[in-house]
Amino acid sequence: MHPSLPTPNSAARPARDSLLFTPGPLTTSLSVKQAMLHDAGSWHFEFNALVASIRRRLVSIADLSPDEGWEAILLQGSGTYGVEAVFQTCVPRGAKVAVLANGAYGKRMGQMLAAASIDHVVLWTDENKPVVPEALSALLSADKAITHVAMVHCETTTGILNPIEAVGQIAKSQGKTFVVDAMSSFGAIPIDFKKCRIDFLISSPNKCLEGVPGFCFVLCQRATLVKCAGCARSLSLDLLDQLRGFDKNGQFRYTPPTHAILAFDQALKEFEAEGGVGARGLRYQANHRVLCAGMAELGLQPYLDPAFQSFIITAFPFPANQKFTFDGFYRGLSERGFIIYPGKLTQVNTFRIGTIGRLFPGDIQQLVYGIREILTAQ
Amino acid sequence: MHPSLPTPNSAARPARDSLLFTPGPLTTSLSVKQAMLHDAGSWHFEFNALVASIRRRLVSIADLSPDEGWEAILLQGSGTYGVEAVFQTCVPRGAKVAVLANGAYGKRMGQMLAAASIDHVVLWTDENKPVVPEALSALLSADKAITHVAMVHCETTTGILNPIEAVGQIAKSQGKTFVVDAMSSFGAIPIDFKKCRIDFLISSPNKCLEGVPGFCFVLCQRATLVKCAGCARSLSLDLLDQLRGFDKNGQFRYTPPTHAILAFDQALKEFEAEGGVGARGLRYQANHRVLCAGMAELGLQPYLDPAFQSFIITAFPFPANQKFTFDGFYRGLSERGFIIYPGKLTQVNTFRIGTIGRLFPGDIQQLVYGIREILTAQ
Repeated sequence: MHPSLPTPNSAARPARDSLLFTPGPLTTSLSVKQAMLHDAGSWHFEFNALVASIRRRLVSIADLSPDEGWEAILLQGSGTYGVEAVFQTCVPRGAKVAVLANGAYGKRMGQMLAAASIDHVVLWTDENKPVVPEALSALLSADKAITHVAMVHCETTTGILNPIEAVGQIAKSQGKTFVVDAMSSFGAIPIDFKKCRIDFLISSPNKCLEGVPGFCFVLCQRATLVKCAGCARSLSLDLLDQLRGFDKNGQFRYTPPTHAILAFDQALKEFEAEGGVGARGLRYQANHRVLCAGMAELGLQPYLDPAFQSFIITAFPFPANQKFTFDGFYRGLSERGFIIYPGKLTQVNTFRIGTIGRLFPGDIQQLVYGIREILTAQ
Repeated sequence: MHPSLPTPNSAARPARDSLLFTPGPLTTSLSVKQAMLHDAGSWHFEFNALVASIRRRLVSIADLSPDEGWEAILLQGSGTYGVEAVFQTCVPRGAKVAVLANGAYGKRMGQMLAAASIDHVVLWTDENKPVVPEALSALLSADKAITHVAMVHCETTTGILNPIEAVGQIAKSQGKTFVVDAMSSFGAIPIDFKKCRIDFLISSPNKCLEGVPGFCFVLCQRATLVKCAGCARSLSLDLLDQLRGFDKNGQFRYTPPTHAILAFDQALKEFEAEGGVGARGLRYQANHRVLCAGMAELGLQPYLDPAFQSFIITAFPFPANQKFTFDGFYRGLSERGFIIYPGKLTQVNTFRIGTIGRLFPGDIQQLVYGIREILTAQ
């Protein structure tokens, strides 16, 4: 009855996968991937218990208390879906969002607000500078229609870290709702929700928590979300309805990416075993130090002023060598088992190197050796 | 440098996973899951080539030609996201959708149209009867505002098969756009796009194609989609922008579920090796026959008239035995390694048994033995 099956891809692959020096999807541990070797029933009580446990652990990683009504709401789709879900669910008709932007992800917030016909204004800062809290103060004084303030914590366009605490203080002192895209920072850079006065934070399992892609999550207080009842412009992206689904029977409203969730459970175990946010941040910092030191020896300096640079991802301007092409460089590294990331800047030609995921300083050192080989051969 | 890692979940699990007799997420082959033991770079040319190949193979499975502009657009999220994406992207302001519904998934179409503030009317048929094409004729005569007609092919609430060809002919003869949710039928029940005159068909990798959940896909002609430019009310669910992204650089606009895509590539290889739509349908039919014969011996008849029943999933009314509880029944089967599905009907208490996924008649026979054990012990 069983037909003979073709062998899976793995047979044709090299002994080790390429390492991903990207902001995600990134390199995960083998044990995280092995957790996906099971088919879970999305209706089954064991799976529901796992989802509930993951939601509790996320609240705990954020150093928040369920007693204060904090919830982690998992949502199918990429991180972008989570950011859009917050806007589609939580911005009432007639409200207006101020976006502080200095890269592609801030810009994308403007695009999703435009798509949803939500009134908004984008406060743009040059890509090599953090967003400016004082500019928000001035804007809020001038435009009383603004009800929500949104920004990106670590803008992976450049790797810049933005001042969420200063912005949050200003936003909340004037009674605005504060939305933070912490996609690539949550789990490795400590975020103090109270000091930053965050209402909604969006992040992803396949960044610093080292899971696989397939869903995202939003952290917020139940009372804040419940106040948004009746606003949602989309069923799939209705965060409150998603929470009501978990309340009702512990289930996702619609088919969850069951394998990605099994992987995330394992990723969280490994995160906790490593020592949580502090330890993970230290490893990534060590990765970043090795990268910057190695690149400096090759005469390559990061695009950003070190004062603004995160240890998540680093943009480097192209070398001065006239023969350099990104395509040749990328393929040379790919042949050596290293996948880097293209630049995303509008004014300067850059490439980017992520230092997050299941990577260790020794891996970064190997990458730097590869870069040296390619650049010196030119 | 590497901390010692906890062992993955698999260590604590039984030798074999429970079999899932559900409409998805369902039981997949081990080789499909093993394809997820790799981290792919979502920007990498090899991954892009795989995505392009999957898109071409889906068009081919649908027996459609790229020369006529047919496209398969992959979209992150569950199948529901795909149905909503079609509405959010392709129904212009001022247009009106008629939904033919006889179960939870047809009803959900109405809910997503309401969320998006799209004018619509739901033509409701009792859950035990197929939707009625003649009722659509009458509605279209009475309400000239209707521009789009939408329906579910196989309504997994009951397992009923709806007459997409008859409805499509009526819809198109009056110039309406025709949208079909073929989530649980595509890949095992032949669908003639030309005869059914389908404009947009939505399906999922983790139904009859036996992949894992994490994304969905929409089949449509490029020209039909391009005509919808400017309609989208959501960025994440903007199908045309998603297609433009694939056009531009072969990539998903936002992080794709890379592992689910690797699994789908393998699932499609196994689908082709089995013999495509015809062979897969035959295996599921054999599963369904064994189920119905075995249940009949236990005195259990399907909820539906056999004339309307698909071989995808079957609803059974609760046995007459006063001691029967769904919870006890479900847990008894779960202890034996079988996961079934609860009912979703409003008027009648049912449970449901799916016969799709990596299941063979022998598996169904084992399930029936388990059911007999539990029912005779009561």
